[in-house]
Amino acid sequence: MRVLTEGILRGWAEEVLGALGAKPHHASSVARNLVDASLRGIDSHGIARLPAYARVVDRGLIDLEVEPEVLRSDGATALIDARNGFGQPAGELAIQQAIELSERHGVGFTVVRSSNHFGTVGYYVRIATRRGMIALGATNSASVVAPTRARVKYLGTNPLAFGAPADGGPGVSLDMSTSAVAGGKLEVAMRERRPIPAGWGITADGEQTTDPSAVIPAGGALLPLGGTEEHGSYKGYGLALMVEALTSMLAGGAFARGVGPLTSGEPTKPADVSHFFCVIDPQRFQDREGGYAQRLGALCDELRALPAVDPDLPVLVPGDPEEEVLARRRAEGIPIPDPVEESLAGLAADVGVALP
Amino acid sequence: MRVLTEGILRGWAEEVLGALGAKPHHASSVARNLVDASLRGIDSHGIARLPAYARVVDRGLIDLEVEPEVLRSDGATALIDARNGFGQPAGELAIQQAIELSERHGVGFTVVRSSNHFGTVGYYVRIATRRGMIALGATNSASVVAPTRARVKYLGTNPLAFGAPADGGPGVSLDMSTSAVAGGKLEVAMRERRPIPAGWGITADGEQTTDPSAVIPAGGALLPLGGTEEHGSYKGYGLALMVEALTSMLAGGAFARGVGPLTSGEPTKPADVSHFFCVIDPQRFQDREGGYAQRLGALCDELRALPAVDPDLPVLVPGDPEEEVLARRRAEGIPIPDPVEESLAGLAADVGVALP
Repeated sequence: MRVLTEGILRGWAEEVLGALGAKPHHASSVARNLVDASLRGIDSHGIARLPAYARVVDRGLIDLEVEPEVLRSDGATALIDARNGFGQPAGELAIQQAIELSERHGVGFTVVRSSNHFGTVGYYVRIATRRGMIALGATNSASVVAPTRARVKYLGTNPLAFGAPADGGPGVSLDMSTSAVAGGKLEVAMRERRPIPAGWGITADGEQTTDPSAVIPAGGALLPLGGTEEHGSYKGYGLALMVEALTSMLAGGAFARGVGPLTSGEPTKPADVSHFFCVIDPQRFQDREGGYAQRLGALCDELRALPAVDPDLPVLVPGDPEEEVLARRRAEGIPIPDPVEESLAGLAADVGVALP
Repeated sequence: MRVLTEGILRGWAEEVLGALGAKPHHASSVARNLVDASLRGIDSHGIARLPAYARVVDRGLIDLEVEPEVLRSDGATALIDARNGFGQPAGELAIQQAIELSERHGVGFTVVRSSNHFGTVGYYVRIATRRGMIALGATNSASVVAPTRARVKYLGTNPLAFGAPADGGPGVSLDMSTSAVAGGKLEVAMRERRPIPAGWGITADGEQTTDPSAVIPAGGALLPLGGTEEHGSYKGYGLALMVEALTSMLAGGAFARGVGPLTSGEPTKPADVSHFFCVIDPQRFQDREGGYAQRLGALCDELRALPAVDPDLPVLVPGDPEEEVLARRRAEGIPIPDPVEESLAGLAADVGVALP
């Protein structure tokens, strides 16, 4: 297993993207985003995705020449057209616009259309949090989740992120798929030949299963957060539909089965993904003593101090696990597991940029 | 079991609230809200709650004289002070303000402080949906849910609602507690002496249980949506914290254990609940063919037509079950189960307004 520092890994990823034809500032935007996920331990959205990005670029499915543009800015809202370029520059423009709108109006709401995979939603939300803002964002994604009661996949995992500044740390950072688990966890179980808990997925026949290989590879589907109707899966399904209603429905983009398979599978058409961000300026509501971040920090401290069922597993605040990995990997480097290294080495050979 | 028409039930509730000292337009606001929940089959938030409202009023915990007021309107945001009056007039003012702000700015964000129980969040969100707007809202609530890994209750069920206009019906209407289930489902199981599924609640010792009486009445706690960590309960917990971050943290109000027990238990202090609403005007994003409601209506139709695991249980869109009950109860009246009738009859005797 190779271990690389963030700087070296980012530099290599930028060179690879450049060799693929990406403009330097796009290569930098994508590399920064992927390495940030790797640093935080969100390996499913990290550097391991680079070969899939390369495949999409190779097939000419992403337009390397375009810049995302603000199609319309109207009141406290803006509509951004990613023009089928990389998702990351479009995501950065959209959160930046939402921040500026919130500075002017107290709240800003932006929608991105004709976009591609843009990494984790939390990445963009944290940009707003670092500026002292509260932010909410989401993206739709390719069909893989069966709505409650359905026997077939239809919606995407449609992840949703929320962030808010809190004293005593970088703030609350929730970043969640609206399915019980994201597909990555089933891939890990499959690789390790471990059964999965009931409530994660169904087979192609619509049956609950504990066999990970009977789910996605066999034409089955993930289940919404909650798992079963008895455990409230209609809430996870409802959240996935909410994400669709705030992204593709506003953007006029592809939805559900119309969304391209992003970086997994064998893409044959542009992804046509849509995103949204809503940024709120907490300063507009402060007329009691104490600032927003101070109050939320105190709440987070109370949460972390709650008695735990297992004293070895303390109560965490959303974002805490990733911050812990971030600190470790900043100090010790980012581990590249053997299968990922093999895939990155293949890409390195293809584009002629040796893996450091 | 008594069955009453909505008009008669609403009229009676208004009279009762008037006899308790509520101003006529407040009595009307509260009665309309409770009867709407009863009409939709959300009986836990319906007319059955009226005796609890009476108890809070009797104890002088709600200020009957005040009107909610807009403390500050700033850009596309507003802060509303409910001044410890009834929650319903404050909720109506807040959604109305958010709608007006969204008409002016494309998006509006309002926060309510010093409020009381205001019924379902969906009630207010649907006011915006009927005006062609997209809306999101939430309220914090009294401590009853154990965060993931905690052995004690801390956060409220902190319900979250989302609504959006869709052709072919009144639109999508998601209204969900961020816990696996709301407390009402455990009460029903307890009354019917049925076990509950694992993943709904824990005992006072932090153990998973299938005995409903071992949860809330015995000092246990509800679990967040997802139930167990393995099934993603940190997502339900994260959503509950998000609600707190968007309500009490912005309002400067009570949070978690500081929130008064609303209408359940034995309240001894004002509830000090906080709410938020965010309303978005879909017209600001339309520059492709077809309107927002048309596109979302088509998506909903696709969802309802998906093949179901059990053909007798078709796939529904959030809000469909309530619309079905609404149509039936509008036609046939609202059934009042015996225990509720008994409690309403007691209230009727107390205030001298006979149950019709």
